[in-house]
Amino acid sequence: MREKGSVEASKPLYFEDLFVGQRFTSGSHVMSEEEIRAFAAEFDPQPFHRDAGAAKATFFGGLAASGWHTAAVTMRLNVEGGLPLAGGIIGAGGELSWPKPTRPGDMLHVESEIVDLKPSRSHPERGTATVSSRTLNQNGEAVQLFTARLVVFRRAARK
Amino acid sequence: MREKGSVEASKPLYFEDLFVGQRFTSGSHVMSEEEIRAFAAEFDPQPFHRDAGAAKATFFGGLAASGWHTAAVTMRLNVEGGLPLAGGIIGAGGELSWPKPTRPGDMLHVESEIVDLKPSRSHPERGTATVSSRTLNQNGEAVQLFTARLVVFRRAARK
Repeated sequence: MREKGSVEASKPLYFEDLFVGQRFTSGSHVMSEEEIRAFAAEFDPQPFHRDAGAAKATFFGGLAASGWHTAAVTMRLNVEGGLPLAGGIIGAGGELSWPKPTRPGDMLHVESEIVDLKPSRSHPERGTATVSSRTLNQNGEAVQLFTARLVVFRRAARK
Repeated sequence: MREKGSVEASKPLYFEDLFVGQRFTSGSHVMSEEEIRAFAAEFDPQPFHRDAGAAKATFFGGLAASGWHTAAVTMRLNVEGGLPLAGGIIGAGGELSWPKPTRPGDMLHVESEIVDLKPSRSHPERGTATVSSRTLNQNGEAVQLFTARLVVFRRAARK
Protein backbone atom coordinates (compact mmCIF):
# COMPACT_ATOMS: atom_id res chain seq x y z
CA MET A 1 0.00 0.00 0.00
CA ARG A 2 1.65 3.18 -1.15
CA GLU A 3 1.07 6.89 -1.29
CA LYS A 4 3.01 9.07 -3.67
CA GLY A 5 5.41 11.81 -2.58
CA SER A 6 4.58 15.45 -3.20
CA VAL A 7 4.33 16.75 -6.76
CA GLU A 8 6.93 19.45 -6.03
CA ALA A 9 9.45 16.77 -5.23
CA SER A 10 9.07 15.02 -8.58
CA LYS A 11 10.92 17.54 -10.79
CA PRO A 12 14.29 15.93 -11.61
CA LEU A 13 17.22 17.81 -10.15
CA TYR A 14 20.79 18.19 -11.40
CA PHE A 15 23.91 18.71 -9.33
CA GLU A 16 23.57 22.52 -9.75
CA ASP A 17 20.06 22.40 -8.31
CA LEU A 18 21.17 20.84 -5.02
CA PHE A 19 22.26 22.62 -1.84
CA VAL A 20 23.41 21.50 1.58
CA GLY A 21 20.42 21.45 3.90
CA GLN A 22 17.93 20.73 1.09
CA ARG A 23 15.23 18.33 2.22
CA PHE A 24 12.97 15.82 0.55
CA THR A 25 10.07 13.70 1.75
CA SER A 26 8.91 10.49 0.09
CA GLY A 27 5.46 8.97 -0.13
CA SER A 28 4.62 6.18 2.28
CA HIS A 29 4.43 2.41 2.25
CA VAL A 30 2.72 0.04 4.68
CA MET A 31 4.70 -3.16 5.28
CA SER A 32 2.40 -6.16 5.42
CA GLU A 33 3.27 -9.38 7.21
CA GLU A 34 2.89 -11.15 3.87
CA GLU A 35 5.52 -8.92 2.21
CA ILE A 36 7.89 -9.33 5.16
CA ARG A 37 7.65 -13.12 4.96
CA ALA A 38 7.98 -13.19 1.15
CA PHE A 39 11.14 -11.06 1.16
CA ALA A 40 12.61 -13.19 3.95
CA ALA A 41 11.83 -16.43 2.13
CA GLU A 42 13.77 -15.18 -0.89
CA PHE A 43 16.68 -13.29 0.68
CA ASP A 44 16.89 -13.63 4.46
CA PRO A 45 15.35 -16.94 5.54
CA GLN A 46 15.75 -16.64 9.32
CA PRO A 47 12.96 -17.57 11.77
CA PHE A 48 12.53 -14.03 13.15
CA HIS A 49 11.75 -12.76 9.64
CA ARG A 50 9.55 -15.68 8.55
CA ASP A 51 7.36 -16.91 11.36
CA ALA A 52 5.58 -14.79 13.98
CA GLY A 53 5.41 -17.72 16.42
CA ALA A 54 9.07 -18.70 16.13
CA ALA A 55 10.09 -15.02 16.26
CA LYS A 56 8.70 -14.59 19.79
CA ALA A 57 11.55 -16.53 21.40
CA THR A 58 14.26 -14.63 19.51
CA PHE A 59 16.21 -11.38 19.94
CA PHE A 60 13.41 -9.55 18.11
CA GLY A 61 10.56 -10.78 20.34
CA GLY A 62 8.24 -10.97 17.35
CA LEU A 63 8.18 -10.88 13.57
CA ALA A 64 10.54 -8.25 12.15
CA ALA A 65 11.36 -7.34 8.56
CA SER A 66 14.86 -8.08 7.27
CA GLY A 67 16.93 -4.90 7.41
CA TRP A 68 17.58 -5.46 3.70
CA HIS A 69 13.83 -5.37 3.11
CA THR A 70 13.61 -2.02 4.91
CA ALA A 71 16.51 -0.86 2.73
CA ALA A 72 14.83 -2.06 -0.47
CA VAL A 73 11.52 -0.36 0.40
CA THR A 74 13.44 2.83 1.27
CA MET A 75 14.99 2.72 -2.21
CA ARG A 76 11.59 2.23 -3.82
CA LEU A 77 10.17 5.23 -1.94
CA ASN A 78 13.13 7.38 -3.01
CA VAL A 79 12.94 6.23 -6.65
CA GLU A 80 9.19 6.97 -6.69
CA GLY A 81 9.73 10.65 -6.02
CA GLY A 82 11.37 10.78 -2.60
CA LEU A 83 14.68 11.85 -4.12
CA PRO A 84 14.08 13.25 -7.61
CA LEU A 85 17.55 13.22 -9.19
CA ALA A 86 18.00 13.64 -12.94
CA GLY A 87 19.45 10.45 -14.40
CA GLY A 88 18.29 8.43 -11.42
CA ILE A 89 19.56 7.46 -7.98
CA ILE A 90 23.02 5.93 -8.36
CA GLY A 91 24.60 4.95 -5.07
CA ALA A 92 28.29 4.25 -4.56
CA GLY A 93 27.71 3.19 -0.96
CA GLY A 94 27.28 4.65 2.49
CA GLU A 95 26.84 4.13 6.20
CA LEU A 96 23.76 2.10 7.09
CA SER A 97 22.07 1.37 10.40
CA TRP A 98 18.84 -0.13 11.64
CA PRO A 99 18.05 1.43 15.04
CA LYS A 100 14.72 -0.43 15.30
CA PRO A 101 13.17 -3.26 13.29
CA THR A 102 10.28 -2.71 10.90
CA ARG A 103 7.20 -4.57 12.16
CA PRO A 104 4.15 -5.87 10.28
CA GLY A 105 1.73 -3.00 9.64
CA ASP A 106 4.37 -0.27 10.00
CA MET A 107 3.83 2.67 7.65
CA LEU A 108 7.21 3.88 6.42
CA HIS A 109 8.30 7.06 4.72
CA VAL A 110 11.71 8.56 4.02
CA GLU A 111 13.05 11.99 4.91
CA SER A 112 16.26 12.90 3.12
CA GLU A 113 18.66 15.80 3.44
CA ILE A 114 21.65 16.84 1.36
CA VAL A 115 24.60 16.97 3.77
CA ASP A 116 27.53 17.43 1.40
CA LEU A 117 28.20 18.23 -2.27
CA LYS A 118 31.50 17.66 -4.06
CA PRO A 119 32.18 18.29 -7.75
CA SER A 120 34.13 15.46 -9.37
CA ARG A 121 37.68 16.30 -10.48
CA SER A 122 38.04 13.38 -12.85
CA HIS A 123 34.50 13.63 -14.25
CA PRO A 124 33.54 17.30 -14.75
CA GLU A 125 30.04 16.28 -15.89
CA ARG A 126 29.13 14.99 -12.45
CA GLY A 127 29.54 15.31 -8.71
CA THR A 128 28.99 13.41 -5.50
CA ALA A 129 26.09 14.24 -3.20
CA THR A 130 26.09 12.88 0.32
CA VAL A 131 22.49 12.34 1.31
CA SER A 132 21.25 11.37 4.74
CA SER A 133 18.02 9.37 4.45
CA ARG A 134 15.99 8.52 7.54
CA THR A 135 13.31 5.88 7.14
CA LEU A 136 10.63 6.54 9.74
CA ASN A 137 7.65 4.52 10.95
CA GLN A 138 4.19 5.88 11.84
CA ASN A 139 5.45 6.88 15.30
CA GLY A 140 8.32 8.93 13.90
CA GLU A 141 10.88 6.32 15.00
CA ALA A 142 13.82 5.66 12.69
CA VAL A 143 13.93 2.09 11.39
CA GLN A 144 16.85 2.88 9.08
CA LEU A 145 19.47 5.58 8.69
CA PHE A 146 21.49 5.62 5.50
CA THR A 147 24.08 8.26 4.69
CA ALA A 148 24.68 7.62 1.01
CA ARG A 149 27.26 8.78 -1.49
CA LEU A 150 25.39 9.35 -4.75
CA VAL A 151 26.61 10.10 -8.27
CA VAL A 152 24.70 13.17 -9.52
CA PHE A 153 24.90 14.61 -13.04
CA ARG A 154 25.38 18.24 -14.00
CA ARG A 155 22.87 19.83 -16.33
CA ALA A 156 25.54 20.04 -19.06
CA ALA A 157 25.89 16.26 -19.00
CA ARG A 158 22.27 15.81 -20.08
CA LYS A 159 21.91 13.52 -23.07
CA MET B 1 21.26 -21.16 -9.25
CA ARG B 2 23.02 -21.80 -5.97
CA GLU B 3 25.76 -23.93 -4.53
CA LYS B 4 26.00 -24.53 -0.82
CA GLY B 5 28.91 -23.35 1.34
CA SER B 6 31.27 -25.85 2.88
CA VAL B 7 30.01 -28.29 5.52
CA GLU B 8 32.71 -27.14 7.99
CA ALA B 9 31.29 -23.64 7.87
CA SER B 10 27.78 -24.72 8.83
CA LYS B 11 28.39 -25.45 12.54
CA PRO B 12 26.76 -22.55 14.41
CA LEU B 13 29.28 -20.41 16.27
CA TYR B 14 28.93 -18.43 19.49
CA PHE B 15 30.81 -15.28 20.46
CA GLU B 16 33.42 -17.39 22.27
CA ASP B 17 34.11 -19.37 19.09
CA LEU B 18 35.04 -16.30 17.06
CA PHE B 19 38.47 -14.74 16.67
CA VAL B 20 39.85 -11.76 14.78
CA GLY B 21 41.15 -12.93 11.41
CA GLN B 22 38.70 -15.86 11.22
CA ARG B 23 37.46 -16.36 7.68
CA PHE B 24 34.35 -17.80 6.08
CA THR B 25 33.36 -18.53 2.51
CA SER B 26 29.78 -18.83 1.29
CA GLY B 27 28.32 -20.92 -1.48
CA SER B 28 27.68 -19.23 -4.82
CA HIS B 29 24.75 -17.76 -6.67
CA VAL B 30 24.39 -16.91 -10.37
CA MET B 31 22.40 -13.72 -10.97
CA SER B 32 20.09 -14.12 -13.94
CA GLU B 33 18.79 -11.21 -15.99
CA GLU B 34 15.28 -12.31 -15.03
CA GLU B 35 16.04 -12.03 -11.30
CA ILE B 36 17.72 -8.64 -11.77
CA ARG B 37 14.67 -7.30 -13.57
CA ALA B 38 12.20 -8.79 -11.09
CA PHE B 39 13.98 -7.28 -8.07
CA ALA B 40 14.19 -3.91 -9.82
CA ALA B 41 10.50 -3.96 -10.73
CA GLU B 42 9.62 -4.43 -7.07
CA PHE B 43 12.21 -2.27 -5.29
CA ASP B 44 14.36 -0.18 -7.62
CA PRO B 45 12.43 0.57 -10.82
CA GLN B 46 15.10 2.51 -12.72
CA PRO B 47 15.82 1.92 -16.44
CA PHE B 48 19.40 0.70 -15.91
CA HIS B 49 18.11 -2.10 -13.66
CA ARG B 50 15.07 -3.03 -15.76
CA ASP B 51 15.82 -2.88 -19.46
CA ALA B 52 19.04 -3.92 -21.20
CA GLY B 53 18.32 -1.64 -24.18
CA ALA B 54 17.55 1.47 -22.12
CA ALA B 55 20.50 0.72 -19.82
CA LYS B 56 23.03 1.11 -22.68
CA ALA B 57 22.69 4.90 -22.76
CA THR B 58 23.07 5.27 -18.96
CA PHE B 59 25.92 5.56 -16.48
CA PHE B 60 26.04 1.77 -16.27
CA GLY B 61 26.39 1.15 -20.02
CA GLY B 62 24.22 -1.96 -19.77
CA LEU B 63 21.89 -3.81 -17.44
CA ALA B 64 23.12 -3.80 -13.83
CA ALA B 65 21.56 -5.25 -10.69
CA SER B 66 20.33 -2.85 -8.03
CA GLY B 67 22.95 -2.56 -5.29
CA TRP B 68 20.19 -3.57 -2.88
CA HIS B 69 19.72 -6.76 -4.87
CA THR B 70 23.43 -7.54 -4.54
CA ALA B 71 23.06 -6.83 -0.81
CA ALA B 72 20.03 -9.11 -0.49
CA VAL B 73 21.75 -11.97 -2.33
CA THR B 74 24.83 -11.48 -0.15
CA MET B 75 22.61 -11.87 2.93
CA ARG B 76 21.06 -15.03 1.52
CA LEU B 77 24.50 -16.54 0.86
CA ASN B 78 25.60 -15.69 4.41
CA VAL B 79 22.40 -17.05 5.97
CA GLU B 80 22.76 -20.27 3.96
CA GLY B 81 26.06 -21.13 5.61
CA GLY B 82 28.39 -18.32 4.62
CA LEU B 83 28.40 -16.95 8.17
CA PRO B 84 27.23 -19.66 10.59
CA LEU B 85 26.36 -17.73 13.74
CA ALA B 86 24.31 -19.32 16.52
CA GLY B 87 20.99 -17.51 16.84
CA GLY B 88 21.28 -16.12 13.32
CA ILE B 89 22.79 -13.13 11.59
CA ILE B 90 21.52 -9.98 13.30
CA GLY B 91 22.94 -6.79 11.85
CA ALA B 92 22.88 -3.41 13.56
CA GLY B 93 24.32 -1.70 10.49
CA GLY B 94 27.63 -1.04 8.80
CA GLU B 95 29.57 0.58 6.00
CA LEU B 96 28.45 -0.49 2.54
CA SER B 97 29.92 0.08 -0.90
CA TRP B 98 29.41 -1.18 -4.42
CA PRO B 99 32.75 -0.85 -6.27
CA LYS B 100 31.33 -2.50 -9.42
CA PRO B 101 27.81 -3.40 -10.51
CA THR B 102 26.57 -6.98 -10.63
CA ARG B 103 25.81 -7.95 -14.23
CA PRO B 104 23.48 -10.63 -15.64
CA GLY B 105 25.17 -14.02 -15.45
CA ASP B 106 27.62 -13.02 -12.71
CA MET B 107 28.36 -15.80 -10.24
CA LEU B 108 28.64 -14.31 -6.77
CA HIS B 109 30.06 -15.64 -3.54
CA VAL B 110 30.91 -14.01 -0.23
CA GLU B 111 34.18 -14.02 1.69
CA SER B 112 33.89 -12.80 5.25
CA GLU B 113 36.43 -12.06 7.93
CA ILE B 114 36.05 -11.19 11.61
CA VAL B 115 37.81 -7.84 12.07
CA ASP B 116 36.79 -6.91 15.61
CA LEU B 117 35.10 -8.47 18.66
CA LYS B 118 33.68 -6.52 21.59
CA PRO B 119 31.84 -8.00 24.57
CA SER B 120 28.72 -6.05 25.46
CA ARG B 121 28.81 -4.18 28.79
CA SER B 122 25.08 -3.76 29.10
CA HIS B 123 24.21 -7.26 27.83
CA PRO B 124 26.69 -9.81 29.22
CA GLU B 125 25.01 -12.60 27.23
CA ARG B 126 26.16 -11.14 23.95
CA GLY B 127 28.82 -9.21 22.07
CA THR B 128 29.36 -7.28 18.87
CA ALA B 129 31.34 -8.79 16.02
CA THR B 130 32.53 -6.55 13.23
CA VAL B 131 32.58 -8.61 10.06
CA SER B 132 33.97 -7.54 6.73
CA SER B 133 32.09 -9.30 3.91
CA ARG B 134 33.32 -9.04 0.33
CA THR B 135 30.92 -10.15 -2.38
CA LEU B 136 32.97 -11.27 -5.38
CA ASN B 137 32.06 -12.12 -8.95
CA GLN B 138 33.52 -14.95 -11.05
CA ASN B 139 36.54 -12.78 -11.90
CA GLY B 140 37.34 -12.13 -8.26
CA GLU B 141 36.16 -8.52 -8.53
CA ALA B 142 34.31 -7.06 -5.54
CA VAL B 143 30.73 -6.03 -6.36
CA GLN B 144 30.00 -5.23 -2.71
CA LEU B 145 31.95 -4.55 0.46
CA PHE B 146 30.03 -4.51 3.73
CA THR B 147 31.66 -4.04 7.10
CA ALA B 148 28.86 -5.02 9.43
CA ARG B 149 28.29 -4.73 13.15
CA LEU B 150 26.56 -7.95 14.22
CA VAL B 151 24.95 -8.98 17.49
CA VAL B 152 26.43 -12.36 18.47
CA PHE B 153 25.31 -14.49 21.42
CA ARG B 154 27.51 -16.15 24.00
CA ARG B 155 27.16 -19.86 24.57
CA ALA B 156 25.69 -19.19 28.04
CA ALA B 157 22.83 -17.26 26.45
CA ARG B 158 21.66 -20.36 24.61
CA LYS B 159 17.99 -21.05 25.15
